[in-house]
Amino acid sequence: MLIATPQTMHFDDALPLQSGASIAGYDLVYETYGRLNADRSNAVLVCHALNASHHVAGSYVGQERSQGWWDNMIGPGKPVDTDRFFVIGINNLGSCFGSTGPMQPDPNAPAGSGKRYGADFPVVTVEDWVNAQARLLDRLGIAQLAAVMGGSLGGMQALSWTTQYPDRVRHAVVVASAPNLTAENIAFNEVARRAIISDPDFHGGNFYQHGVVPKRGLRIARMIGHITYLSDDVMNEKFGRALRSAVLHEAGAVEVSTNGSANGSADYRYTTQDVEFQIESYLRYQGDKFAEYFDANTYLLITRALDYFDPARRHGGNLRAALAGARAGFLVVSFTTDWRFSPRRSREIVKALLDNRRDVSYAEIDAPHGHDAFLLEDLRYMGIVRSYFDSRVALPPGPQS
Amino acid sequence: MLIATPQTMHFDDALPLQSGASIAGYDLVYETYGRLNADRSNAVLVCHALNASHHVAGSYVGQERSQGWWDNMIGPGKPVDTDRFFVIGINNLGSCFGSTGPMQPDPNAPAGSGKRYGADFPVVTVEDWVNAQARLLDRLGIAQLAAVMGGSLGGMQALSWTTQYPDRVRHAVVVASAPNLTAENIAFNEVARRAIISDPDFHGGNFYQHGVVPKRGLRIARMIGHITYLSDDVMNEKFGRALRSAVLHEAGAVEVSTNGSANGSADYRYTTQDVEFQIESYLRYQGDKFAEYFDANTYLLITRALDYFDPARRHGGNLRAALAGARAGFLVVSFTTDWRFSPRRSREIVKALLDNRRDVSYAEIDAPHGHDAFLLEDLRYMGIVRSYFDSRVALPPGPQS
Repeated sequence: MLIATPQTMHFDDALPLQSGASIAGYDLVYETYGRLNADRSNAVLVCHALNASHHVAGSYVGQERSQGWWDNMIGPGKPVDTDRFFVIGINNLGSCFGSTGPMQPDPNAPAGSGKRYGADFPVVTVEDWVNAQARLLDRLGIAQLAAVMGGSLGGMQALSWTTQYPDRVRHAVVVASAPNLTAENIAFNEVARRAIISDPDFHGGNFYQHGVVPKRGLRIARMIGHITYLSDDVMNEKFGRALRSAVLHEAGAVEVSTNGSANGSADYRYTTQDVEFQIESYLRYQGDKFAEYFDANTYLLITRALDYFDPARRHGGNLRAALAGARAGFLVVSFTTDWRFSPRRSREIVKALLDNRRDVSYAEIDAPHGHDAFLLEDLRYMGIVRSYFDSRVALPPGPQS
Repeated sequence: MLIATPQTMHFDDALPLQSGASIAGYDLVYETYGRLNADRSNAVLVCHALNASHHVAGSYVGQERSQGWWDNMIGPGKPVDTDRFFVIGINNLGSCFGSTGPMQPDPNAPAGSGKRYGADFPVVTVEDWVNAQARLLDRLGIAQLAAVMGGSLGGMQALSWTTQYPDRVRHAVVVASAPNLTAENIAFNEVARRAIISDPDFHGGNFYQHGVVPKRGLRIARMIGHITYLSDDVMNEKFGRALRSAVLHEAGAVEVSTNGSANGSADYRYTTQDVEFQIESYLRYQGDKFAEYFDANTYLLITRALDYFDPARRHGGNLRAALAGARAGFLVVSFTTDWRFSPRRSREIVKALLDNRRDVSYAEIDAPHGHDAFLLEDLRYMGIVRSYFDSRVALPPGPQS
């Protein structure tokens, strides 16, 4: 079993940010799997999406069920084979899993005030994250990545690497991603943010000093997110219109259990405020779980990084021009039922790369799971990534790239 | 100009509800347009959707901009021609526009308590609304409708009329509707309800006596709704990634105005809590407006009526069996970009009706506006409804129906 060990690297030098602000004296938490080879040419950087972290693969000692979020993809003998590649997972700035973020002490606050960054944490972008990741690689002595990879927002970082540091990336694997958000994507992010910001426990982002957490808002945000991660079809298959039915126990306690009949053989209970359908119970559970561990300011920061990502913006909307400087080989993967970042969006990336005569492999996977598919085991998907790494990434760096 | 005049009818007899509860001593508010003919055969009932009302067509005296919600469809010379048909708009039980609903005094509360129904208003279903509408028609002396029509949730009522009162409906016009909600539809309703219920100002539904309104929750609910009413394409066309730009006035006041450039020539302001994109500003505006006039308990009741509607449920999920008793002629209309109630859902209705050898006309309108299309002017859509009313509904009742 792959054992994961988080590490922390401290950076004293201020990192200039896209917004014009900068952040000094920050930490980045990361994990590595496998061994860096002698010529330091087998490093693969994995970038995370909204609520994930540096814990990409393996498990922590004594915590068997603590698998990393992409453990089906990365590990010994897996599509990204850690017997062969040195894989790095990194937690981005602004996140809430160890790297410097809004939950940490604000160095700009008066000494002894105990104030955390909160709403004063600077806005970070995909480009800023990539710059921070590049500095970490500098410190690890890695001049060039064999590959950078990620799904969703992670795919945006992989894409951005190829233009920000064209000489430092041999391959980029961009999964279930998009060249920017549509108005509808931004709209969903904005409703989720509004739910958090308008929660009275948010206190403008400085809720830490009030000893509260805007859980109501976080729950709503997560429920909205979950709807957009799944496809209509998979929701119908998993939950359909099935009801939850109340079971009265001997002790008089009411236990709400699921009722397997999708045709609703059980009776409606006619309630507007309580759970009636299984899908409601699922969403509430997801919302409750999320509100226990995720930071509200991080949610705002990361959704904003999504909103702001738009490499074509500085090129009058021309994605081909935006990607003209990329030198990497590309594997782009999309999923048919992903309506958050549909295959059409991936095809925009592919077209812009082909217009630049880049070397691109593109796979559109027929999967029922919607956006979530990028995290799930799927033979064709796994097979394609494996074969890309085996046949392309594993080649020694040289004239072919 | 068509002048609209709301009227109120009081009902003393208790209306038994599907839940087993009943409601007594209630009012229904309605409007009528045109004149009932001598044999009372030209009545058309229009059923409303989530946030609409009895005010279907025309304007109120002295309020020129108070057009009814389907004023483009109904009026003199319009597709549903009030020179020919006697059109009735009715506000459903549980609504907040005049008919008895959660905002009204609770007759079951102790005299003098001033308590309003609030959360104690009974859960009402599509079937209950149809029963209440039928009683109103009884009082108006209308034994049979020339047609019943509605869009979205209104279409569900029209469909339900044809099985609850098969002999009282000659034609049913079912627009942008569905035979039931999918898991995803229920999920969106549930998130909106959660936003309302978890607003501290909701007070379990009895906020009236606290002198507050759960506006935060209502805003979020409306924002979510709006996303599902529009198509991705129309949102991109209307808003895209365009920014709002801040204009500094002489006085030093900052005015936020829209910036027409979809390519984002203006600079990002790098903010997580303020408006950055036009789509955000649009959604906030819609949310704020809605929170000013809509009742939170009504929102819960009406979304639950949507969730519960499922005529096939009592027939083991068999829609054909559920619609076997229908006798009406049908016009079913859907819109290509409607992802809330997609054409596929309308086709389920059409198939079940055809399997029952019913007389069905079906139009799938190629419109970019998503679910909202059913409220908008569209030549083909209007033309199809007009021609259905001219050539089919206008025929005198007789053996052909």
